[in-house]
Amino acid sequence: MSSNALNWKEHFIAIRSNKIFETVVITIIILSAMMIGATTYDMDPQWISALKLFDIAVTVFFLIELLIRMVAEERFRDFFKKGWNVFDFLIVTASLIPIDESQMVLLARLLRVFRVLRLVSMVPEMRILMDALVKAIPRIGYVVLLMFIIFYIYAAFGSFLFEKINPVLWGDITIAMLTLFRVATFEDWTDVMYETMEVYPFSWIFYLTFIFLTAFVFLNMMIGVVLDVMQQEHEKYNREEGQGEAGEVHWIKEHTGQMEQRLERMENMLQKISEQKQ
Amino acid sequence: MSSNALNWKEHFIAIRSNKIFETVVITIIILSAMMIGATTYDMDPQWISALKLFDIAVTVFFLIELLIRMVAEERFRDFFKKGWNVFDFLIVTASLIPIDESQMVLLARLLRVFRVLRLVSMVPEMRILMDALVKAIPRIGYVVLLMFIIFYIYAAFGSFLFEKINPVLWGDITIAMLTLFRVATFEDWTDVMYETMEVYPFSWIFYLTFIFLTAFVFLNMMIGVVLDVMQQEHEKYNREEGQGEAGEVHWIKEHTGQMEQRLERMENMLQKISEQKQ
Amino acid sequence: MSSNALNWKEHFIAIRSNKIFETVVITIIILSAMMIGATTYDMDPQWISALKLFDIAVTVFFLIELLIRMVAEERFRDFFKKGWNVFDFLIVTASLIPIDESQMVLLARLLRVFRVLRLVSMVPEMRILMDALVKAIPRIGYVVLLMFIIFYIYAAFGSFLFEKINPVLWGDITIAMLTLFRVATFEDWTDVMYETMEVYPFSWIFYLTFIFLTAFVFLNMMIGVVLDVMQQEHEKYNREEGQGEAGEVHWIKEHTGQMEQRLERMENMLQKISEQKQ
Amino acid sequence: MSSNALNWKEHFIAIRSNKIFETVVITIIILSAMMIGATTYDMDPQWISALKLFDIAVTVFFLIELLIRMVAEERFRDFFKKGWNVFDFLIVTASLIPIDESQMVLLARLLRVFRVLRLVSMVPEMRILMDALVKAIPRIGYVVLLMFIIFYIYAAFGSFLFEKINPVLWGDITIAMLTLFRVATFEDWTDVMYETMEVYPFSWIFYLTFIFLTAFVFLNMMIGVVLDVMQQEHEKYNREEGQGEAGEVHWIKEHTGQMEQRLERMENMLQKISEQKQ
Repeated sequence: MSSNALNWKEHFIAIRSNKIFETVVITIIILSAMMIGATTYDMDPQWISALKLFDIAVTVFFLIELLIRMVAEERFRDFFKKGWNVFDFLIVTASLIPIDESQMVLLARLLRVFRVLRLVSMVPEMRILMDALVKAIPRIGYVVLLMFIIFYIYAAFGSFLFEKINPVLWGDITIAMLTLFRVATFEDWTDVMYETMEVYPFSWIFYLTFIFLTAFVFLNMMIGVVLDVMQQEHEKYNREEGQGEAGEVHWIKEHTGQMEQRLERMENMLQKISEQKQ
Repeated sequence: MSSNALNWKEHFIAIRSNKIFETVVITIIILSAMMIGATTYDMDPQWISALKLFDIAVTVFFLIELLIRMVAEERFRDFFKKGWNVFDFLIVTASLIPIDESQMVLLARLLRVFRVLRLVSMVPEMRILMDALVKAIPRIGYVVLLMFIIFYIYAAFGSFLFEKINPVLWGDITIAMLTLFRVATFEDWTDVMYETMEVYPFSWIFYLTFIFLTAFVFLNMMIGVVLDVMQQEHEKYNREEGQGEAGEVHWIKEHTGQMEQRLERMENMLQKISEQKQ
Repeated sequence: MSSNALNWKEHFIAIRSNKIFETVVITIIILSAMMIGATTYDMDPQWISALKLFDIAVTVFFLIELLIRMVAEERFRDFFKKGWNVFDFLIVTASLIPIDESQMVLLARLLRVFRVLRLVSMVPEMRILMDALVKAIPRIGYVVLLMFIIFYIYAAFGSFLFEKINPVLWGDITIAMLTLFRVATFEDWTDVMYETMEVYPFSWIFYLTFIFLTAFVFLNMMIGVVLDVMQQEHEKYNREEGQGEAGEVHWIKEHTGQMEQRLERMENMLQKISEQKQ
Repeated sequence: MSSNALNWKEHFIAIRSNKIFETVVITIIILSAMMIGATTYDMDPQWISALKLFDIAVTVFFLIELLIRMVAEERFRDFFKKGWNVFDFLIVTASLIPIDESQMVLLARLLRVFRVLRLVSMVPEMRILMDALVKAIPRIGYVVLLMFIIFYIYAAFGSFLFEKINPVLWGDITIAMLTLFRVATFEDWTDVMYETMEVYPFSWIFYLTFIFLTAFVFLNMMIGVVLDVMQQEHEKYNREEGQGEAGEVHWIKEHTGQMEQRLERMENMLQKISEQKQ
C-alpha cells in the first residue's frame, strides 16, 4: 500500500470516528426521513423537483459516507462481517435504482423508506435496544410455533364446521386463521361468534377455549422473556460487581479450611508439650 | 421370549431412537397437517382421490410407528404409563375410523386435525414447553373458580335486572355470562351499557365494578403464575448449581463449630500448662 | 353455665370442625347457587313452587348452621370479630326477608345471589386468595386516586371543549368521564375522536396523551402490586425457612467474635509461657 | 432584616408546616375541583354568580398561600428551585387572568382545571408516586423513539400503497400514523385491513407484522421499566437495611484474616516452646 493511500485511509478513519460527522449523518437521515414523509402530501410541482434534487444529494451523500467507512476498515472483508454494515450497504445501494416515470417509482420510494432505519444503526443506544430485542427472538421461537399449531388446529376445525355459514370468514384454512387472529385481538369477535351460534348453539365453547388458550400461551411467552432477560441481567451483575458476597464467602471457606489444619497441628504440639510435662 | 423376537425388539428400539426415523415421522406429521389444510380448499376430484390415498398411507405409517414404539417398550404396560404415549395412541386409533360418504366424514376429518398435535409430542422442546404450561394449571385453578363466582354473581344480577331490556343479551344466566365475557374483552361493551343505562341510569356502576374486578383478579392470577414459575426456577437453580453460596455458608458454619470445640480443648491444655509452670 | 349447655356447646364445636359437615354446607351453597341460576330461566309453575320450597329449606339450613357456629364460639362477641363471620351473618339474615308478590321480590332475589359468595368464605384456599387480593388494595389506593385525577382533568377539558359537538358523550363531567373510560378500554374510541377532529383537527393530541398517560399509570400500578406481593412473599420466606443462609451467616459472625476473644486469651498465655521459659 | 419582619417570617414558616393549614389547602383544592366539575352542568344564573364569587375567593386564597410559602423560604430564589413550587406558581398566576365575557373565558376555565393537579403537589404520597413515574421516563425515551420509527416506516409504506384506496385513512403520513395507532389499539382494525385486502390481497402481512412488532417492542418497554424499578428498589433496600448479610460476610472475612495472622504467630511460639523442651 502506498504511503499516499495510507494517508487517505487515516483521514477516513478520523472522519468516521468524528463526532461532528456522526451528527451530520444523523441530521441527513432525519431530513431524508422528513422528505419521505413530505412526498406523501400533495405538493406544488416546484417543491417536487426540489425534493428530487434533495433526494439525489442524499443518495450521493450516503454513498460517499458508505465508501469512507468501507475504506476506513482495516481489511475490506471485515466491513461485511458486522450485520449493521451489511444493513447500511443494502439500504444505500437500493436507493441507487433510478427513479424515472415508470413502474419502478413506487418500488424506489418504498426502498427509500428503509433509510429511516439507518437511524437505528447510527445511534448507539438504539443499536443496544435493537440487539436486546433480537436476543429475545430464539426464546420466543418455539412459543410462536406452539401458537401457530393452536391457530392451525382451530382454523381447521373452524373451516370444516363453519365454512357453509360464512365462507368469507371460514372459507379455507388461511382465511380462518386470519379470522382467528381477529378473534384473538377481540376485534368484533362476538359478531363472528353470534353468527355461528345460530347454527351451532354450542360454538361459544370453540371461541372461549381459543381465547383462553391463546391468552394463556401468550402470557407464558411474556413471562419466559421477562425471566430470561432478568436472569441475563442477574448473571451480568454477578460477573461485574457481585463477586462481592459470593466471592467473599468462597474466600472465607478456603481460609477456614487452612485455619483448621493449622489448629490441628497446634493441638498436636500442645498435646506433646503437656505430655512431656507430666 | 424367543431369541428371534428379542432380535426384532432390539431392531425396534434402534429404530425408535434413530434420529433419521424421528425426522421422517416429523416430516410425515407436517405433510399430514398440510393435507388437512389442503382439504379446506375447493379442489379437483383428481386431487381429492390423491389426498385420500395419502391419508391412508399416513394412517398406516402412524400405526406402524406406534406399534414399533409399543414393541420397543420393556414391558407392554409401561407404554401407557407415559401421558404422551396415551395421547399418541388415541390420535392414531381415532384415525382408523373409516371415511365413507356418511355422517362420519366430518367427525373423521375433525379427528385427523388432532394429528397436528403429534408435533408437540415429537419435538422435545415443544414437550418441555407444554409440560411447563400444564404445571401452571393447578395454581390457576382456584383463581378461575373465583373468576367464575364473580361472573356468576354479576350474571345473576344482570339476568334479574336487565332481562326485560334485552333478553338476547340477558335472557338467562348462561347468556348473561357470555355477555359479561364480551364486556370483559371490551368488545362493544358500551353498546351493552348504554342500552341498560336508558332504564337504569346508574347501571354503569354494574359494568365498571365488573371490569375493575375481573381485570384485578386476572392481574393477580398473572402475578401468581409469574411468581410460581420464578420460585420454581429459583429452587431448581439452587439445587443444581447454587449450592454455591448457601452450601459454602453451611460448610463454614459446621467447621466454625468444630474449630470452637478444638480451641476450647486447646485453651484448657494451655491453662494446665501455665498452672503447672507457676 | 350449666353442664347441659356446655355439653351442647361441645357438640356444636365438634359439628363446626367436622369435615363432612363442611362438605354438606359447601354442597348446599352450590345447590343454592344453581337454584339462583335456574330462576333466571322460564319454568313450569310446578318447578317454581318446588324451588320456593327448596329456597325455604336452604334459608333454614343456613340459619341453623350460623347459630351452631355462633354458639360454638368461646364468647358470643368473638364471633363478630372475624370479618368472614360478619359477612356470613349479613348474607344469612338478608335472606330472611320474606318473598311475597310485591316490590320486594327483586330485592330478595338479588340478596340471595350473594349466597354464592359464602363459597369463598367456606373454602380455605379461596379465603387465602381473597385475603391476598384485599391486601393489595391499600397499595393501589393512591394510584387509583392519581388515575381519577387524570380522568377528572381530561373530562373537564373534554366537557369544556367538546360539549357542543356531542352532548351525549361530553354533556357534563360525569358523562365525559364515562366516555373517557370507554376511550381507555379502546372501545370505538376512534369514532369519538374522528367526531371531535372535525371541529378541532388537533384533538387527536387530547386522546393520544390520555391513552398514553392512563396506560402508563396503570402499568406502574401493576408493577407496584407485583413488587409488593413479591417483597411480602420474600420476607415471609425468609422468616419461615430462609433463616437458612442469613441466619447461618449471623451465627458465624457471633461465633467468630467469640473465637477471636478466646484466641487473644490463648496468645497471652503462650506469651507468658514462652517468657517464663527463656 | 428588621426584627419585625423576622417575626412575620417565623409566623409564615409555622403556618406552612401546620397540619391544619395543609388540610385546609387540600380541602380548598378539592372544593375548587368540584366547582370546576359543577360548571360543566347547566345551572341557574343564581348558582353561576355564586360560583364566580367562590372562584374569586379560591384564587385569592391560593395567591395568599403561595405568598406565605414564598416568604417562608430561607432565600427567595430557593423557592423556584423546587419543581413543585414552580408548578404551583404557574397554576396560581395562570388563574389571575380575569374572566370577562370574552374569548378568554374558555382559556381561563381550562387553566383553572390544572388546579386539580395541586392535589398531587400537596399530598406527599402522591408526590412520591409522581416522582417514581417521572423517573421511569428516561428509560422509556429510546423505546418510544424506536416505536416512532416503526410507526413512521409503516405509515410511509401505507401512505404510498393505500392512499388511492382510502385517502381518509392513508391520505398523508400523519393521517396514516393515526390510522396505525388505531390498528395498534385493535380498534376496528379488521375494517381497515379488509378494505386494503380487496386491492392488495396480501396486505394482511402489513398489518400482522405491524401488530407483532408494536406489541413486542411495547412488551420489552414494559419489562425494561419493571426491571429498572426493581433494581432501584433492590439497591435502596440493600443500602438501607440489607447491609445485613453482605455486611456481616464482609465483617467475617476481615476478622478471619486477622485470626489467621494471630494463629500463625501462636504456632510459631508453640514451635519454639516445643523445640526448647526437647
